[in-house]
Amino acid sequence: MRYLGLIETYKEYLPVTDKTPMLTLQEGNTPLVRAENLSKELGLNLFFKYEGLNPTGSFKDRGMVMAVAKAMEEGSTTIMCASTGNTSAAAAAYAARGGLNCIVLIPNNNIALGKLAQAVIYGAKVIAINGNFDRALEIVREITAKHPITLVNSVNPYRIEGQKTAAFEVVDQLDGVAPDYLAIPVGNAGNISAYWKGFKELHAHGRITKLPKMVGFEAEGAMAIVKGEPIAEPETIATAIRIGNPASWKTAVAAAEESEGQINYVTDEEILHAYKLIASREGIFAEPASAASIAGVLKLKREGKFQGGETVVCVLTGHGLKDPNIAIKSVQAEPIVVDDTEEAVMNAIRQLEGAAQ
Amino acid sequence: MRYLGLIETYKEYLPVTDKTPMLTLQEGNTPLVRAENLSKELGLNLFFKYEGLNPTGSFKDRGMVMAVAKAMEEGSTTIMCASTGNTSAAAAAYAARGGLNCIVLIPNNNIALGKLAQAVIYGAKVIAINGNFDRALEIVREITAKHPITLVNSVNPYRIEGQKTAAFEVVDQLDGVAPDYLAIPVGNAGNISAYWKGFKELHAHGRITKLPKMVGFEAEGAMAIVKGEPIAEPETIATAIRIGNPASWKTAVAAAEESEGQINYVTDEEILHAYKLIASREGIFAEPASAASIAGVLKLKREGKFQGGETVVCVLTGHGLKDPNIAIKSVQAEPIVVDDTEEAVMNAIRQLEGAAQ
Repeated sequence: MRYLGLIETYKEYLPVTDKTPMLTLQEGNTPLVRAENLSKELGLNLFFKYEGLNPTGSFKDRGMVMAVAKAMEEGSTTIMCASTGNTSAAAAAYAARGGLNCIVLIPNNNIALGKLAQAVIYGAKVIAINGNFDRALEIVREITAKHPITLVNSVNPYRIEGQKTAAFEVVDQLDGVAPDYLAIPVGNAGNISAYWKGFKELHAHGRITKLPKMVGFEAEGAMAIVKGEPIAEPETIATAIRIGNPASWKTAVAAAEESEGQINYVTDEEILHAYKLIASREGIFAEPASAASIAGVLKLKREGKFQGGETVVCVLTGHGLKDPNIAIKSVQAEPIVVDDTEEAVMNAIRQLEGAAQ
Repeated sequence: MRYLGLIETYKEYLPVTDKTPMLTLQEGNTPLVRAENLSKELGLNLFFKYEGLNPTGSFKDRGMVMAVAKAMEEGSTTIMCASTGNTSAAAAAYAARGGLNCIVLIPNNNIALGKLAQAVIYGAKVIAINGNFDRALEIVREITAKHPITLVNSVNPYRIEGQKTAAFEVVDQLDGVAPDYLAIPVGNAGNISAYWKGFKELHAHGRITKLPKMVGFEAEGAMAIVKGEPIAEPETIATAIRIGNPASWKTAVAAAEESEGQINYVTDEEILHAYKLIASREGIFAEPASAASIAGVLKLKREGKFQGGETVVCVLTGHGLKDPNIAIKSVQAEPIVVDDTEEAVMNAIRQLEGAAQ
């Protein structure tokens, strides 16, 4: 039987009416991959929720399908967001699918066209303003408040509704129980809020009896929640969580407190280490921001926070192919060059194997 | 319940013994997305088998998980392939997961490091030879014949076994029937051979009563099978099918003949058109080679080959994020730049909407 997407699958838990279109690119239904090698080393029962295998390559598809379906239900023909990354890709894809226009507003500085390639190929119209990202978001809010254009940035309440379905899947994939810990990168803080909402709803419906501890990790250069104040100029290699004033700050703190978890931070060095570790030890390529979750688990392990044997799910928010340049920069990418003879190649192999030992 | 990957799911149909490790990155289980908009326009019941949502971003994961699992079963500790693209990424990922070494041999000309980023981040050792791709493959064959190193290029017979599972999924997703047509890009021709093998096995087991017509599409600049002779210098924008002498030539021709289908070709222009069409109309971003399948269906439609209402499955072999530069080049990517005022942005929106009409 064909999987029919998030809205159809979880409609009882979502703001779906008779008039909500069953829009889908078959988002969700993403793998929960057991970290076979790292579980042994860490003495944990460790899993990755690999959200990079959503249609546009990130978890944003979950919230966006819901936001765009509701926009269609309400008769909107144009959606709009301020974004230079995963949000714009998801918005543009679902707008294309639903036959809507999609306007993406970006600041006219350091525009990496590669990051926008997805939005553009899906047919979004990109407008750059002579101003920064915050100003772009302000203008999006102003315009969508006055004109029949739907805002699909994370302040759109349907985004969180769609995103919470990831918690439903985790429980289903663990045969009906929640993990002991849910580790997750924290940028704008919507995703930790959404997972917690999802787990609590399952609990309220009697579907699970135990709730997970929510442990969220900001990047050190953008750790507004950890510091307790907004960061004016956030900086981290993990661009998807480079956010100085998280929109879902309060709900993220509530998730950590209510679940007896925590909001902590990891350094860029720890993020890059974890990023390479999961690729080279588990065969999983995730974008740098994703690796904040596993970097955080490694940190908690070092600090002796685990007893041993706990089930820990690390959310990997986006696919590594979203940012291939980081991969090239972070490893020795230049190949050895040798003659085209069997002997020369065998010598090179022996050399490499020797170096690896 | 957690999906457990190809080998576990389809072990009755695969060369699996008690000693075969249940290696998996949860490859397979990829979406079959209905082309809602294009189905209406073309008068077909059109679907995309979206293989770009495999763990490393292409269908190669299906064959590679089987090849690497068998290498492990046979006690091998090193695998090797000649590849600059999707094959090396898949080989490296499963080697990492299984704890094997992975050697990738490439020609030392026009190396696009971006294409190798994946293999390298998964920990593969890359060796470049002063020779072309054919020579690299020859050396891989020589070395793996003499040394305890396993060849995982497409001549490894387990690759086709793993790949045939995509046909099983298509039938399952169509509630137990095969489509009328299976449209697929043809490069090395292993994939069309694998799908046909899969459908025939289901038929032999009485799981389906009707077989699909297999329609394969080469790129015009690499249409060895269509021409009936190898192409010395194949050239096409669809690099994943830029192959002048397909390894699975005979089985591909047999698949087309036995199924009353055909091997045909599409131009680069048709490929790029289809590539942009499925992104902008259906919200699906696939690598250019993938678009050969839908370009081929559009060609057959123009030629009056369909009666109307047929169920057609187009295989999309890899994710668009594999080759973002093509996306940037193929669309007008430069954004409009305006002042940071609501009015300036609204004027730009009206201008874009006017241009779109």
